Amino acid sequence: MKKSQNEENDVARWLTYRPEIKVLDCTVRDGGLMNEHNFDDEAVKAVYDACVAGGIDYMELGYKGSKSVFSPTQYGPWKFCSEDDIRRIVGDNDTDVKLSVMADAERTDYHTDIIPKDESPLDLIRVACYIHQIPTALDMVKDAHEKGYETAVNLMAISIIPDRELDKAMELIAASDADIMYLVDSFGALYSEQTRHIIKKYMSYMEPLGKRVGMHAHNNLQLAFSNTIEAIVNGANMLDGSMAGFGRGAGNCNMELLTGFLHNPKYKSRPLYECIHKYIEPLRKDLLWGFDLPYMITGFLNQHPRDAIKFNLSEDRGNIVKFNDMMAEKE
Amino acid sequence: MKKSQNEENDVARWLTYRPEIKVLDCTVRDGGLMNEHNFDDEAVKAVYDACVAGGIDYMELGYKGSKSVFSPTQYGPWKFCSEDDIRRIVGDNDTDVKLSVMADAERTDYHTDIIPKDESPLDLIRVACYIHQIPTALDMVKDAHEKGYETAVNLMAISIIPDRELDKAMELIAASDADIMYLVDSFGALYSEQTRHIIKKYMSYMEPLGKRVGMHAHNNLQLAFSNTIEAIVNGANMLDGSMAGFGRGAGNCNMELLTGFLHNPKYKSRPLYECIHKYIEPLRKDLLWGFDLPYMITGFLNQHPRDAIKFNLSEDRGNIVKFNDMMAEKE
Repeated sequence: MKKSQNEENDVARWLTYRPEIKVLDCTVRDGGLMNEHNFDDEAVKAVYDACVAGGIDYMELGYKGSKSVFSPTQYGPWKFCSEDDIRRIVGDNDTDVKLSVMADAERTDYHTDIIPKDESPLDLIRVACYIHQIPTALDMVKDAHEKGYETAVNLMAISIIPDRELDKAMELIAASDADIMYLVDSFGALYSEQTRHIIKKYMSYMEPLGKRVGMHAHNNLQLAFSNTIEAIVNGANMLDGSMAGFGRGAGNCNMELLTGFLHNPKYKSRPLYECIHKYIEPLRKDLLWGFDLPYMITGFLNQHPRDAIKFNLSEDRGNIVKFNDMMAEKE
Repeated sequence: MKKSQNEENDVARWLTYRPEIKVLDCTVRDGGLMNEHNFDDEAVKAVYDACVAGGIDYMELGYKGSKSVFSPTQYGPWKFCSEDDIRRIVGDNDTDVKLSVMADAERTDYHTDIIPKDESPLDLIRVACYIHQIPTALDMVKDAHEKGYETAVNLMAISIIPDRELDKAMELIAASDADIMYLVDSFGALYSEQTRHIIKKYMSYMEPLGKRVGMHAHNNLQLAFSNTIEAIVNGANMLDGSMAGFGRGAGNCNMELLTGFLHNPKYKSRPLYECIHKYIEPLRKDLLWGFDLPYMITGFLNQHPRDAIKFNLSEDRGNIVKFNDMMAEKE
């Protein structure tokens, strides 16, 4: 059978790599949602060192949370990412890894807590918002952009936004100073066809402006990695992953799967494996992230995983029939 | 933004279902590879009852292994699936679930051990073979077909078959009595684009003859479910899954994910959850199937998972750096 041009292109896609693709490690930031950001310095430094040695493009350290919203006695340092805490780990960050923090709309004192870029080792401010927070988010983007940072808007809970609102939101984000617009599948509820559909929309707004589209997936339906691939195939060039998938609930796209897939020779797996073995996997028995059936059920229901997280911390953990019946009653 | 016709079709695909799609539960057969097919009757009956209550289309009970190849003192009854053992569980199988067994090329005394369909509760014989065993496999298909069974060819280790050989194999299988031709990703090594590429080829041979294409995935790269979806989107109508993904190494596509995705109202989740909770999950701590990094590494290397299975049973289990270095040395 003679190969068609399409077939040749297909094969080229999986034997080559796109150098413009960047990966962002969100191990400490998204994983921190499972331990109230209480990592000791050694663990954060280990993730940072692994990112440097592994050729990771960006590392996210945590949130710039407002101390008037979150109590510093309850939450660890990476909920706030003070400049002092950051420098204690990375110094001036004289490496190829760029550093990011997440700034939640309405939960960040951005005017004061985000300082000018030339005074900070940070490179990228990622503004996370729900659809109704777009005006605040865009003001935060403007602020960070004027202070000299790269900026991203991470529009959360994408799977429950009606199309007519999403179109308008994209228009506004594309017209803003944001360099990157992220698809955030907060509930891990998207299938590949839906991912493709949304990423194509994102691309139609951002690509003509030379701006980037990003993907942040959750693994409720075991689709975090494959939806990230789907995003790549449709043009996304900023990809979130975390070591061992460490993140809230069902967790994220595993960074070690992602870099293995990308085939860019600058990515090295062994430093990631070392960090996973020594620092991340030992956390699993207490923090309990990763695919399991309660997370699958909230994913199928297109709901926040909070009920599943609570169930997994209760004495009923493992009794999937009970969780199923509980959720069915609620519907 | 006005919706295009394509967009409407996309949405239709994920809000409707294809009634012609059938699912096959391979929990006992593929899971049996982790315990030498030593299930007690209660467990096999529980899986059968769950399939009946869950609306599953086919259940595979095990292998028709030759007793001159496999010792009945080493292997449990589901390595052999004698007609007596089958009837002890299912009687005459007066249900809507069809029953299948797997018959390995060169490891099955098919002339004697597969009896005429009108004397057996079995419905489907799935012949598993490597590419060099095609002549034997086709003789087995002919034999089973003449005895009155539905037949499938499960061509294993697809990810290491050169295209020129695969084309010829498909031609031969399509021209045979086989009703179904399966993509079997034995090493869990395929990405979505490769899956699409192969399924499209399969379809080009089978669809014009009114024959079916099937998908049997492994989860080494956390892509078993998504590659099964990819197969569905490209026309496959016979889909393997197992409860809790129970199967060799990284396991299979989870049946509960698959039926949740398919949205055919005849599939019921709760009976599957009951069986998983009571019978399948309790096996995990000893049998150790499911995604983890050694299986990921053999997947990336496009190799049989045997080294990873062995490593996971050794005292080094969990030390992914050691496994990585061991495999790197071998390369």
